[in-house]
This record gives sequence, C-alpha cells and structure tokens, in this order.
Amino acid sequence: MPELRHDPIQRQWVIIASERARRPSEFEVTVTQQSAEFCPFCPCNEDKTPPEILAVRDGYSAPNSPGWSVRVVANKYPALRIEGDVDRSAEGLYDRMNGIGAHEIVIETPDHSRHMADLPPAHLAKVLRTFRERLVDLMRDIRFLYVVVFRNYGESAGATLAHPHSQLIAMPILPRVVEIELRSARDHYHHRERCLFCDVIRQELDAGTRVVVDNGRFVAFAPYASRSPFELFLAPVQHQHDYCQITDDDTELLAQTLIETLYRMRAALNDPPFNLMMHIAPNLKSRSIWLQDFPYLADAYHWHIEIIPRLTKSAGFEWGTGFHINPTPPELAADYLRRISLPA
Amino acid sequence: MPELRHDPIQRQWVIIASERARRPSEFEVTVTQQSAEFCPFCPCNEDKTPPEILAVRDGYSAPNSPGWSVRVVANKYPALRIEGDVDRSAEGLYDRMNGIGAHEIVIETPDHSRHMADLPPAHLAKVLRTFRERLVDLMRDIRFLYVVVFRNYGESAGATLAHPHSQLIAMPILPRVVEIELRSARDHYHHRERCLFCDVIRQELDAGTRVVVDNGRFVAFAPYASRSPFELFLAPVQHQHDYCQITDDDTELLAQTLIETLYRMRAALNDPPFNLMMHIAPNLKSRSIWLQDFPYLADAYHWHIEIIPRLTKSAGFEWGTGFHINPTPPELAADYLRRISLPA
Repeated sequence: MPELRHDPIQRQWVIIASERARRPSEFEVTVTQQSAEFCPFCPCNEDKTPPEILAVRDGYSAPNSPGWSVRVVANKYPALRIEGDVDRSAEGLYDRMNGIGAHEIVIETPDHSRHMADLPPAHLAKVLRTFRERLVDLMRDIRFLYVVVFRNYGESAGATLAHPHSQLIAMPILPRVVEIELRSARDHYHHRERCLFCDVIRQELDAGTRVVVDNGRFVAFAPYASRSPFELFLAPVQHQHDYCQITDDDTELLAQTLIETLYRMRAALNDPPFNLMMHIAPNLKSRSIWLQDFPYLADAYHWHIEIIPRLTKSAGFEWGTGFHINPTPPELAADYLRRISLPA
Repeated sequence: MPELRHDPIQRQWVIIASERARRPSEFEVTVTQQSAEFCPFCPCNEDKTPPEILAVRDGYSAPNSPGWSVRVVANKYPALRIEGDVDRSAEGLYDRMNGIGAHEIVIETPDHSRHMADLPPAHLAKVLRTFRERLVDLMRDIRFLYVVVFRNYGESAGATLAHPHSQLIAMPILPRVVEIELRSARDHYHHRERCLFCDVIRQELDAGTRVVVDNGRFVAFAPYASRSPFELFLAPVQHQHDYCQITDDDTELLAQTLIETLYRMRAALNDPPFNLMMHIAPNLKSRSIWLQDFPYLADAYHWHIEIIPRLTKSAGFEWGTGFHINPTPPELAADYLRRISLPA
C-alpha cells in the first residue's frame, strides 16, 4: 500500500510509492519509447491496458476495442490506490495516511505521434470534456480533496511513453502549490471582495506586453514573475472557479486557445519538452475539514492552466530552494511567441 | 540591471536576469565542459576570472596567481548586482525591486576533476570555513536578508563548468522554501518552546531506520517524507541556528560527515548528478522589517544541508505543483547507503 507522509518542516505531503520501490540500479536512464516499439496505448492493443473507464467513440464499437477517439484507463502502476480508508495516524512528530486515491490515464488520440498542437480543435475539445467528466465523477468520492490533472511531453519532462496522454491523480490532500494559491486568493478576496486571478488577468489584458493569445473568452500570457523562460498561464477571462462548470462551447474555445499557444511555443523553441498542469478548485464535496478555512472559495478562486517548457537544467536546485533565476523576461518571451506565424 | 519580481498568486520572488536575456535559439543543449577543454577555474588561469575576493593559500603566493587551495571570485555573469539601492516599487498588483545582491563562486580545489567525496577532510574543512568567512562578510551588508549557498554537480543538476565549485547568492529577499521552514520553526517554538529541527533530529536518532551517518556531532539521514529518492538531510545534533557560528573544530567534523555521506551516495548510485543546498538563518542584521515576525529565530531555527541526487526526470512537474511521488522509501534508501563499505 502506498503511503502519504507529511513533512513538518516543509509542511508538505509526499507520496511514498513503496510498492514500486526502486533499487539504486533501477535509476538508469530511461529512454522514451520510440514509435517503432510496441505501444500499449495504440488501437488494437486495448487489452494491454486495464479496462477502459470511459471512452469517446464516434460510431458503434465495443468497449476495449478500436474505434475510440479518446480513452480513459486506470494507470497500470498507480501512485495511489482506490480501495480502503484514509486511516490517518501520527508517527511521533510526523503524520501519515494510507495512499488512497485514483490514478487515471487519458489517451488523447489513437494517433501515436500526434502533437497536441496538431490535434483538430474539435478533437482536443473532446479531450477537455473528458477531463471534465472524469473530474465530476472522481469528485463524487468524499475521500478526495483534490485532483491533479497534468501532461508531460518529452523525455526530459518526465514522459515515459511517447503516445499522447494526460494523467489524473485524485488524492485526500492538497498539493502545496495549490494550497499557497488558495491562501493568496482568500486573503485578496477578504480585503477587496474581488478575485485575485480576475484582477491579474485584467491587468495583463490592459498592459498587453505579456499576452500571447487573447480571443476574448480565454487568454494565454507569460506571467509577470515567470519562474522559467517561456512559462505560460492560460485562463478563462470571465470568473469561473471550477473547471467542472466549463460548457461544451467553451471547451471548443479553450481547445483553440491551447492549440494556438502550443503551436507558437513549439515553433519558437524547436519542439521543447514541456509540463502542463491544470490548477483547479479542490473538491467542495470532500469531507476534509480543511475546506472550512476557505469559505469564499467559489468567488475567490479561478481555475487556470500552467505550461512550463523544460529549457533549463537547473530545475532541481530551484525545486529545493523555491528560488528561481529566469534569464528570459516574460515581455521578451511573449514578443517572440506573438511573432510566430500561424498556419493558413 | 536584473530585477526582482513578486508573484501575488504564488507569493514568490523571482530574479529576472534580463541582462543575460536568452533568445529561443540559445536554449540548445549545453554540454558540461570536458576536462580536456580550457577551464577558467584551473590554476594559471586566474586572470580569466574576476579578481579574487578571498583565497586560502598555504605558503607564500601573490593574489590571483597559483598557490591557492580554495579561491573565491565574483561570478562573471552575476544573477544580481552589488551596486545600487534596493528601490522597491509597485506595478499594479505586482511588486518589484532592483536586482541588488552578490553572486560569488567558491572554487573548492585546484584539482579540476576531484569529487567532493575524495577531498581530504582537512581540505573540505577549509572550504567550509571559506563559506563561513564569506557569509560573515556578506551579512555585514544590511541590504541582504538572505544568502543561498549551493552546489550543482553534473550536467543534469545544472552545472555548466565541471571544475569543483559552489556558489553564494546574497539577496534582499527570502527564498520561499526557507520562509516556509522559518514559519514551521516559529509555530513549533511558539507552542512548545523547543526547536522543531532538534525534535526531528532526536526522533530520527531514536528511530535509527533512516540514519545514514552519525558521529555524535553531526547526523545525516533520509527524511521521513523524502520528496525524491535518496534525498538526504545533514545537520548538527546540538542546536545551532546560524552557520556563521560553526567552530573550526566543527568544520573538520562536518567535512568528515559530508565526505562519508557523499561517498556512500556516489557508490550506491553510480556517481549521480546532485544538488546540495545549505539552509541557514537569514541575516539578523538586515534592515528588512520581515525579521520582526520571527522574534525567536535564534532559538527556533537550526541550519542544515539538503542533498538531492537527480535520479528521476519528473522534477519539472513536481516543481510546478509542489506534489511529489517518491518511488523509494527513505528507510530503504538509508539501508542501501549504510551497507556501502567505506575505503580502509
């Protein structure tokens, strides 16, 4: 059983995935699987993954057979397990709980080598609606306080399978970075009765210097205090705290925004590896008492997407200190990205 | 002039080093310099670095000439600049200040290819005393609230020059990770009138399962909630908040502890890249009003060293979410490290 452990110094929960314990010799360089090799996420290999939880099928086809355009399966090597109780306990100064959660894979397309920037907008909208459906379902489980949605692209961004896929991890705790955001949002709302993110987005749209894509409904910009070169922040312009509330029409517009943003980034930076993270509201149905500290969450928080191309090697030091040196001002990054010509 | 910018969402200061602005094409893979190539840190190349700030010379030799065993110079490409005023200002919701600070390089040995684990303890003690001397000197500057001391080893840990060296960056702000530690330490002290770190160290020594090196005066252990495989925490067993107070005798014992720890790590993990970070008390002489929030700092904080071998590829995602999945339980990591035989 994996374990969640809390560090009283860094005030951070960590998953200790002891069931897939790795010995020193297992830390050899892992090479991202090449397209010529066998791929468990390709059509006709559906029996090589756990059975599908959900699939988008345009015509008639049986579950766990070809014919899907988006497919969700449980992770074969889950970081957290769905069965059991949270079971909290102390270990002296430390805190632990069972590694309860869910770990799912969203296979975004049957096409093994399709970059997200090259998906038709209508197809990416299906992926974005699939995220919504899985989030709504996972948040019915009152044990889960949060669901992380993320995507690694490229070997040095942590992708171990090349086939386009995202991951969802549902958990009984909050990741620290989200907790900090929620506190900032709460304090801002408490003083001003305005959403911090709405204020930041309005200021960015007014300044314009860091904006990369703006279609009136969604905006992508390089944050004022970007932690790494070409970091990008993508959000709905109108207030919306919960990604689960996104409409079907908005998934189409979000898909267009994401495709244009990724297209510009790929062209400017020669197809860089990247990490994409959705920062969404925690599960308000969760039984965690933690939510009591955030009474205005629906008015104060604003979901968004962070994209970080992996261009510099020093992430480990920055990760260990929280201290970032960014050699590319975001105004310059946004300017480069805006100058990229889009395909006709 | 570099700039410090504050993000109101992540509550984090970032250095935007605009003077060394990098264009998209400059993010090509940089290869760590090989020993056959020219090295500005090797003896006889002293004129290829800025003039020395301090050097340890065992016999008689002129400044900026060979004969040194440890040498400190300004970074030729500093992230922060020493001249000028802090000059704080608002930019709408954002905060900025001038990039005032100092950025120094400690060249640890004349020997281009000596691993820190292979330095004689007496030599590493000189390096550790050099850190102390530079910290004492930099903290005379009341503009500086904090000095980060760190070392990158290996290309994928961010080292761009192979010659053994550490870096010091003095700055008018606190890195976020240190701020979180100081808050945890303050709250623990406020409730219990005990140092959180002393309590953690005592619990680790009592349990023993995660301890790797213990010589009575210094201890190295794998933290209970290790964020990455084989993460290590090294600290004095007796309370000491400020690294500047370390005695000469203790630098010898710390050198022995560090050498044994790194020797075990290198042998177990086949010479991995790693990041080493010193977490020390902030500058109590700083004029920052921030210090008023931490009245018990000398009793509540405890300096320490974090070592993170770079074994997994996913640091970027974890850096962006604050959410860590560690496949190696620290008890297992400590056991592997303890089993390594030391040289006779």
